[in-house]
Amino acid sequence: MSESDVKEGKSNINLIEECDNFPYCQRDLDTYMQYVSTYYHFRVPSCPRTLGYVLPSVAEVFRNLPDWEVDDFSTPRTLTLIFGDDAVFRSAAVARTVQAMRETGHFQVLEGWRDELYPVYDSDGSILFSLERSASPLFGIITYGVHMTAFTKSNSSYGLKIWVPRRAKNKQTYPGMLDNSVAGGIASGENIFESLVRECAEEASLPESVVRESARPGGTVTYFYLRDARAGGETGLMQPECQYVYDLELPEDVTPKPGDEEVQEFYLWTVEEVQEALRKGEFKPNCALVILDFFVRHGIITSANEKHYIQLVSRLHRHLEFPTP
Amino acid sequence: MSESDVKEGKSNINLIEECDNFPYCQRDLDTYMQYVSTYYHFRVPSCPRTLGYVLPSVAEVFRNLPDWEVDDFSTPRTLTLIFGDDAVFRSAAVARTVQAMRETGHFQVLEGWRDELYPVYDSDGSILFSLERSASPLFGIITYGVHMTAFTKSNSSYGLKIWVPRRAKNKQTYPGMLDNSVAGGIASGENIFESLVRECAEEASLPESVVRESARPGGTVTYFYLRDARAGGETGLMQPECQYVYDLELPEDVTPKPGDEEVQEFYLWTVEEVQEALRKGEFKPNCALVILDFFVRHGIITSANEKHYIQLVSRLHRHLEFPTP
Repeated sequence: MSESDVKEGKSNINLIEECDNFPYCQRDLDTYMQYVSTYYHFRVPSCPRTLGYVLPSVAEVFRNLPDWEVDDFSTPRTLTLIFGDDAVFRSAAVARTVQAMRETGHFQVLEGWRDELYPVYDSDGSILFSLERSASPLFGIITYGVHMTAFTKSNSSYGLKIWVPRRAKNKQTYPGMLDNSVAGGIASGENIFESLVRECAEEASLPESVVRESARPGGTVTYFYLRDARAGGETGLMQPECQYVYDLELPEDVTPKPGDEEVQEFYLWTVEEVQEALRKGEFKPNCALVILDFFVRHGIITSANEKHYIQLVSRLHRHLEFPTP
Repeated sequence: MSESDVKEGKSNINLIEECDNFPYCQRDLDTYMQYVSTYYHFRVPSCPRTLGYVLPSVAEVFRNLPDWEVDDFSTPRTLTLIFGDDAVFRSAAVARTVQAMRETGHFQVLEGWRDELYPVYDSDGSILFSLERSASPLFGIITYGVHMTAFTKSNSSYGLKIWVPRRAKNKQTYPGMLDNSVAGGIASGENIFESLVRECAEEASLPESVVRESARPGGTVTYFYLRDARAGGETGLMQPECQYVYDLELPEDVTPKPGDEEVQEFYLWTVEEVQEALRKGEFKPNCALVILDFFVRHGIITSANEKHYIQLVSRLHRHLEFPTP
């Protein structure tokens, strides 16, 4: 990618900064400390580590609620789930609270209620409890997903081509934007690969046998997103995420087709066409990161054509501060 | 890799912890702050960022030297190179100081003098100055290298096999340990890919045409190594490193051969043989990380067989706090 192309639109680092926009303590310790000391640290008594960061305006709503304790005098300040000694009881307590907040219309993010449970992990990697997906940014916990890039290596002069879907115009979030070939969240207790196989069938009508035989894991992409208006709901909520990434080389005669109402259509694009769409900001922000990681792993983005190569590679794999499985 | 295998030797996370052993601010802010506030921050007046961390015992030796300023009262404490307005003059000043220290036998690490210049980058990515390779841990600056994994996809039942060299018994550092197929440091001003091509000829007698045609970049591996006895010289010196990683698929009839005295011999090993050597701690520590990254990118280490998958992937790509090219 030449200098002049970058000037015409978003650079690769711009794309990362739009998604991984929480300060880095290694780079700017003062700003990081300022942010982190402003938040309430979400805890449960049995786990020594913070599970997520909570905005003061959110913590305020938990004050005097049964099952919860808000401590303004500890360092850091904490929001603690004090009810429940195991995952079942903790999950029930969180469900009661979040359901009540939904009914009283306390938080805009809960208007995107999904009826899907996401896991929160203990420091030993076991599940501490599960909670409604749309409530996760209120607690600033890590959420998990699986994102796959399907591609063909055609014999034509175009070389590698990538299957790029456009999100349906009526999708709740990021309507009409470009996405990864197949992508979805991983619900509590769900196996990562089985989740991928299911999403491949639902979203892209890909035969199960092809996915099981040919999908290859390629690592993870991790980032810390400070939610802005594009995400919908309250701004300033925190959304650290981990995407398990997979590649799937498809034979030229296998074509993804929209399988549900999430996807409008699929394009089969050259690398140059995908890069053009990235520069124009047409990709959903976290999907842009998964594509950039694919380009790094496949030697398309190199130290010779990307001047921020080192920064780019490390920022696609941010070390998150909360417990993971 | 099964639980019982891990118990028999080093786990993948053990291998990372042996090389990436500087504390993480995201995980343990107090320990990190304690470490970082103990050190002198290496600076030049024109650059707003710290270039490396310096042990107090090292900073002490620079006190009252011309060209240098040691400030015990700033926060953080600093060691500043005050001579020179450009790379040429700064490099000359550093060379004078380091050469004098070598002659007076001040530092053990300088006994490994290499007569090779390494670059130190400004916050805009340009070269601030260059310095003798063996002196870099005194200043705690980032050093750069290129590491390549050569492999074959044989038609036999063994599948993928990796070319693994054993370092010569008389090598200055890590004698007799296993290494990456080809690896070397990148000198100041040297092009990354040309450096790889040169090392491939010198260390493995690989034909230039094969390397140019088939070597593929796969990202970077970054880590922060706090030097212990294994590295030689003073312990506690800091060595943050960035390795540009490449893969090279070789036809079965191309065989790497030791081209200089650095390598004793090459083995062509199955994935299981390489994993066994990793568990036994036979690889040079940073080379183990490059192999783990290869295994992640090639879908050999997966979320299904590595329980610390997320942590492993992000720790192979540590975000370093100092300026990079």
